[in-house]
Amino acid sequence: MELVAGKVDLYEGTDHVGPPPPGVLRWIDLCSQDAPQLELLRERFDFHPLAIEDCAHHDQRPKLEEYQDHLFLVTQGFACSKDRVETLELHELHGFLGEKFLVTVHLGNIGSLDEVWRRLSRDPRVFERGLDFVYYLIADGIVDDNFPILDTIADELETLEDSILSRPQRKDLARIFELKHHLVAMRKVLSPQRDVLGMLAKRGDARISDRTALYLRDVYDHLVRINESIEANRDLLGNALEAYLSTVGQRTNEIMKALTLMSAVFLPLAFVVGFFGQNFEDLPLLHDWTKSDGLMYVMLTICVATPLTMIYWFKRKGWL
Amino acid sequence: MELVAGKVDLYEGTDHVGPPPPGVLRWIDLCSQDAPQLELLRERFDFHPLAIEDCAHHDQRPKLEEYQDHLFLVTQGFACSKDRVETLELHELHGFLGEKFLVTVHLGNIGSLDEVWRRLSRDPRVFERGLDFVYYLIADGIVDDNFPILDTIADELETLEDSILSRPQRKDLARIFELKHHLVAMRKVLSPQRDVLGMLAKRGDARISDRTALYLRDVYDHLVRINESIEANRDLLGNALEAYLSTVGQRTNEIMKALTLMSAVFLPLAFVVGFFGQNFEDLPLLHDWTKSDGLMYVMLTICVATPLTMIYWFKRKGWL
Amino acid sequence: MELVAGKVDLYEGTDHVGPPPPGVLRWIDLCSQDAPQLELLRERFDFHPLAIEDCAHHDQRPKLEEYQDHLFLVTQGFACSKDRVETLELHELHGFLGEKFLVTVHLGNIGSLDEVWRRLSRDPRVFERGLDFVYYLIADGIVDDNFPILDTIADELETLEDSILSRPQRKDLARIFELKHHLVAMRKVLSPQRDVLGMLAKRGDARISDRTALYLRDVYDHLVRINESIEANRDLLGNALEAYLSTVGQRTNEIMKALTLMSAVFLPLAFVVGFFGQNFEDLPLLHDWTKSDGLMYVMLTICVATPLTMIYWFKRKGWL
Amino acid sequence: MELVAGKVDLYEGTDHVGPPPPGVLRWIDLCSQDAPQLELLRERFDFHPLAIEDCAHHDQRPKLEEYQDHLFLVTQGFACSKDRVETLELHELHGFLGEKFLVTVHLGNIGSLDEVWRRLSRDPRVFERGLDFVYYLIADGIVDDNFPILDTIADELETLEDSILSRPQRKDLARIFELKHHLVAMRKVLSPQRDVLGMLAKRGDARISDRTALYLRDVYDHLVRINESIEANRDLLGNALEAYLSTVGQRTNEIMKALTLMSAVFLPLAFVVGFFGQNFEDLPLLHDWTKSDGLMYVMLTICVATPLTMIYWFKRKGWL
Amino acid sequence: MELVAGKVDLYEGTDHVGPPPPGVLRWIDLCSQDAPQLELLRERFDFHPLAIEDCAHHDQRPKLEEYQDHLFLVTQGFACSKDRVETLELHELHGFLGEKFLVTVHLGNIGSLDEVWRRLSRDPRVFERGLDFVYYLIADGIVDDNFPILDTIADELETLEDSILSRPQRKDLARIFELKHHLVAMRKVLSPQRDVLGMLAKRGDARISDRTALYLRDVYDHLVRINESIEANRDLLGNALEAYLSTVGQRTNEIMKALTLMSAVFLPLAFVVGFFGQNFEDLPLLHDWTKSDGLMYVMLTICVATPLTMIYWFKRKGWL
Repeated sequence: MELVAGKVDLYEGTDHVGPPPPGVLRWIDLCSQDAPQLELLRERFDFHPLAIEDCAHHDQRPKLEEYQDHLFLVTQGFACSKDRVETLELHELHGFLGEKFLVTVHLGNIGSLDEVWRRLSRDPRVFERGLDFVYYLIADGIVDDNFPILDTIADELETLEDSILSRPQRKDLARIFELKHHLVAMRKVLSPQRDVLGMLAKRGDARISDRTALYLRDVYDHLVRINESIEANRDLLGNALEAYLSTVGQRTNEIMKALTLMSAVFLPLAFVVGFFGQNFEDLPLLHDWTKSDGLMYVMLTICVATPLTMIYWFKRKGWL
Repeated sequence: MELVAGKVDLYEGTDHVGPPPPGVLRWIDLCSQDAPQLELLRERFDFHPLAIEDCAHHDQRPKLEEYQDHLFLVTQGFACSKDRVETLELHELHGFLGEKFLVTVHLGNIGSLDEVWRRLSRDPRVFERGLDFVYYLIADGIVDDNFPILDTIADELETLEDSILSRPQRKDLARIFELKHHLVAMRKVLSPQRDVLGMLAKRGDARISDRTALYLRDVYDHLVRINESIEANRDLLGNALEAYLSTVGQRTNEIMKALTLMSAVFLPLAFVVGFFGQNFEDLPLLHDWTKSDGLMYVMLTICVATPLTMIYWFKRKGWL
Repeated sequence: MELVAGKVDLYEGTDHVGPPPPGVLRWIDLCSQDAPQLELLRERFDFHPLAIEDCAHHDQRPKLEEYQDHLFLVTQGFACSKDRVETLELHELHGFLGEKFLVTVHLGNIGSLDEVWRRLSRDPRVFERGLDFVYYLIADGIVDDNFPILDTIADELETLEDSILSRPQRKDLARIFELKHHLVAMRKVLSPQRDVLGMLAKRGDARISDRTALYLRDVYDHLVRINESIEANRDLLGNALEAYLSTVGQRTNEIMKALTLMSAVFLPLAFVVGFFGQNFEDLPLLHDWTKSDGLMYVMLTICVATPLTMIYWFKRKGWL
Repeated sequence: MELVAGKVDLYEGTDHVGPPPPGVLRWIDLCSQDAPQLELLRERFDFHPLAIEDCAHHDQRPKLEEYQDHLFLVTQGFACSKDRVETLELHELHGFLGEKFLVTVHLGNIGSLDEVWRRLSRDPRVFERGLDFVYYLIADGIVDDNFPILDTIADELETLEDSILSRPQRKDLARIFELKHHLVAMRKVLSPQRDVLGMLAKRGDARISDRTALYLRDVYDHLVRINESIEANRDLLGNALEAYLSTVGQRTNEIMKALTLMSAVFLPLAFVVGFFGQNFEDLPLLHDWTKSDGLMYVMLTICVATPLTMIYWFKRKGWL
Repeated sequence: MELVAGKVDLYEGTDHVGPPPPGVLRWIDLCSQDAPQLELLRERFDFHPLAIEDCAHHDQRPKLEEYQDHLFLVTQGFACSKDRVETLELHELHGFLGEKFLVTVHLGNIGSLDEVWRRLSRDPRVFERGLDFVYYLIADGIVDDNFPILDTIADELETLEDSILSRPQRKDLARIFELKHHLVAMRKVLSPQRDVLGMLAKRGDARISDRTALYLRDVYDHLVRINESIEANRDLLGNALEAYLSTVGQRTNEIMKALTLMSAVFLPLAFVVGFFGQNFEDLPLLHDWTKSDGLMYVMLTICVATPLTMIYWFKRKGWL
């Protein structure tokens, strides 16, 4: 068995581009989308032009296409660094899996692919399990990178909910929409990814051994769990938004109560003191009273009694 | 038939770890996730590394995986103590069901499993119905533990609804979101659990006798009912939230009415008394009137008539 | 053909408990959940313990379980008296349908069952159509009892909608939630009931004759219509709630307008009259004017012009 | 071929009620639900009692029931006159389609049926295409009557949306709910109608020739389009409601701003002029000032500066 | 192989209307819906009247109908010029695909069709791949025109979201509803379009070669991605609407706070200064104080202390 140093750039002259000689397994990893190199692949392996075109344009969706002597697989997943959701990044890997060769095409570094590369370098016996197993290792890595992201999102959601129920802030709202954006993006990718792996694990393709199929079923299982987590988190995000809106509504309500109370107490008082501030000087009705203690005590009584009555009435209405 | 004391810890030397001799049925219960013990299981029974890995990491989802000579089953359910939803706890049981052996792995006590254990000790004849029946007894216990939880949630919901429609409070909102959290968690687990038991009851696997399949159909039926209850409760929780929001809105509305009424009554009055509080002393228009009863009675009439008119008008608009 | 008086209580000694002799059809109706009587049934007919256990605990869901020589059927429906939805009541009937016997178990009176009983007493020829036809008659009665309930709900909904669009009241909200509760309860029961009858009508079971299957298809059809009505009513209830909320919001809006208008008119006026109520007595600016008609007319003009301007401006903004 | 004058009322003595003699096709159209006439049909054609019962009770749902020598079809659709949605009316046609006969039962006039009748009178050759083709013509007419209704609804919706976004009014809300009512009613009928025609077009029944099946596929296609339009309109109606609610909310918001601004400007001013309206006559602090220009200019400055500051501050907060 | 100049108008005399002679492939493109020309097509090719009727009425839905010697395909897609969503336009192409002929009927220019025409003129070898490949080229062009539209919508959505979260404006709302309208329209067309191409790619029809089927699978794939994008965008639009509503609500809330604060500060002050503005001149209580500094300082203290207390209290309540 030969492990081809596929991570170097491909050029016309290289011998090891193309299907390997009998009895040899070959994994070629092309970290580029350059037309000449893709063209080289197409010529040597006789890949379908549509598949090569897909490789040239990233941002495909996860899919599985059967061609005569190989499978064409688009595998996608997310990764983020240091558990910060902001750094969410889509990894996309295009793979051609034949019986004797595995060709992977991607752009930029994919941590889990490098991992597999290192493992193969250290322990070439893995190769004996076949190229489908190598593909499993890569896919498993790409899929499992999604778990910490979902955990982080779930943690943030919990913090958000606490913050919303105690004291909702403007930035909570922005955060809710950010998280929802991330979940929409993840679902868009990981839901078809799950279907692809489900098909791969079930369908008894010649290029997938039964032994590997068991392992792919495990990856499928992880994807089911991931998708369920995404759904549950979306559900809870919806909750958080409703909680936010209703807490804000509640707050408006409380402020309204305070305002109404204040107005209720001071508007009548303003009327009372305004009433006795009028310039009717010598009228019989007021004349006698403005000169006497009586009217003043009436006024003072009103000033004290009105607020108390109001407060009592509001308490009975349940507004306080 | 031999009943192995599987609840003790496993160690290298124990004879009874591993497939039993012909004619013997064996149930091993491992209450631990320690790597050496799982490794021991793997060696003796030749379990698949992926299944053993699942056992080492709880928080799987309910599933059913077929291997050559056994089924690997993840069974989950919830339990709570003293009918308090706050104490909700996830029970997770991993089981390997072969024709001659049943290996169960879990962490912490599972009440319904201990129950089965006690029943088997008292009445070993149960063993004669086969290990699939023992698994049924365990699964039945785990599933039925969910009913009282749902009853409690339904009761709380009813109390909540009454409280919301009569006098909505801030803590009702928090309670709604708590209950929804619980329901989301339960659905996430019990909906795949239902599918697992549906498959188990239908599929005519060699390890499940027809007689036991009838019983598993019953557990499946319970899970269908549980899932329907979860959905109905989610639906009603949504209602409760809407009721809460609209009652709060209604209340704001009522307070607004009171405020508007108050302002409507007192703002004109304030104007009137302010008008007569101006310092235009010797003007012909006011001069004659401030000295006369006439103007005063006009003022008093306005002070009485304005609020009455306002109140009448509001009544006609339906705001009172 | 013999019609057994199944409506009496069962006791050990009775001959006619158990499968009838050849050539005889027997219908036993047990209106009780007492353990000894159910035990008696189990012994004589050899029913499955799980089915008997179901009979002992009402509140099952509609289902159809096949056993070797009989079908076990749980049939549910709602009934209410005098077209009042408040009196909604769940009827639950457990039935064992064999080729020669029909055993029905229920709690409390089921009107449509009594009806069938009376019809059989009057016209025993019905018996000749087989016990599956008797079951059809019972199921048909239980199902058709649901139609008047849905009609009542639809009528109430229409009244509610009118009331909401013209003048929404607090009790409308409570009514909406009550109706929704009823619909959730009905859907939870009648949706699986529909599936059960669909299976029964289609599946060509030996215990269901082709002739009766046509009739069961008719019951299935009624259930489909009932479920569609439930869905349509749920939809319209959602509408009614939205209408309620938006009408309340609209109303708040109108009240806000009135308040704003009022404040807009009287706050400036209060300022004006307050301004001329200040105690600057001998200042050149005011001195001359407070003694003259001029300033007073300015003041009066302001008092009239300000509200008019405000009202004009609001009309242009569309707030009036 | 004979075209029977089926549109007259049926009575005992009529010869042409019942299956036609060999070599003759017969279409009988009964515009009544009278029991004796239906009974007559049942006797002569040997129709199933359940189908006859359905004919006696309109308000069935669209369905297709196979009997030994004929199909029983319930076909429904809506029609409205002069493109006014208010006049929406449900047309229901019950049809028995045998190889040699077509019996249609309905209540009231159905325009598209009369149309077919006229066409057959003018051009009896249509009859040569078989009775299934006659049924196609009727169904096609009933289905196509729904298109103008949906167009009208779509037009009204567009008008509504424009009106809502520019100036939402109370009656817009009522209109939204009316339209939704219509759509719910249409979907309830036309969605099962689509399924019925789908089955009819596909299933290769002996009574439907291949040639007619092509035509029925076309009707099915129309129904698919109608149902998609209903869904899209429901979607847009939901939008319109949201737009309404949010525009009303927006408006409340604007009115709030105006109110706040007003209060913000005049409340401080009222305080200022009130402050200088107090009766502290001989105090050193005020004594000197009320007699001097200084204090007055301070007062005037405050009266001008406060509103300006407020307005500037609000502009910066984005409330103006 | 002959390439017929199908883009000219058809008239009776033209030879090349109709099935081509053996060994010749013919593509006829009719850019018209005129009855005589369609009639000509029908006569020469013997197309089904229903298909011809469809051609005469645009605004069909995407569909695939099999006739004896040809497929009838309705293909739809959207195009917009200069990346402005406002210019969205529906392209509809009706195609008859036989083994030897391809007849396309449309109204107005379809850019991607002209493209194919030019390519065929330049490189007639494309014709050798068969007429199904020509159809693929056209369909691919029509489908791919939708991508830039979705990109534009996604871009606008992002701008909208930013604008809404920072400063929501009235026109954002109108924009949201406009975009939703576009998405509803696109989904209504492109979702059945996807199903049509899925069927075409899978079903092994005699008129579609295996080689072309691979290419059609690619178009199907694009349509799946387009539909997923539509769904994701609808989801995010829903978010944007919620964000808009809640930001507006939040804003109302803030304005309420300001209003309440203002009232809270100035209403008590107005009372205080009103109190000391009353005309009780010689009463013992006030008499001594209005002449003394004491009362004035009390007044001044209240005027300063009240607002400060209020502000402190509001801060503690979290309203500031």
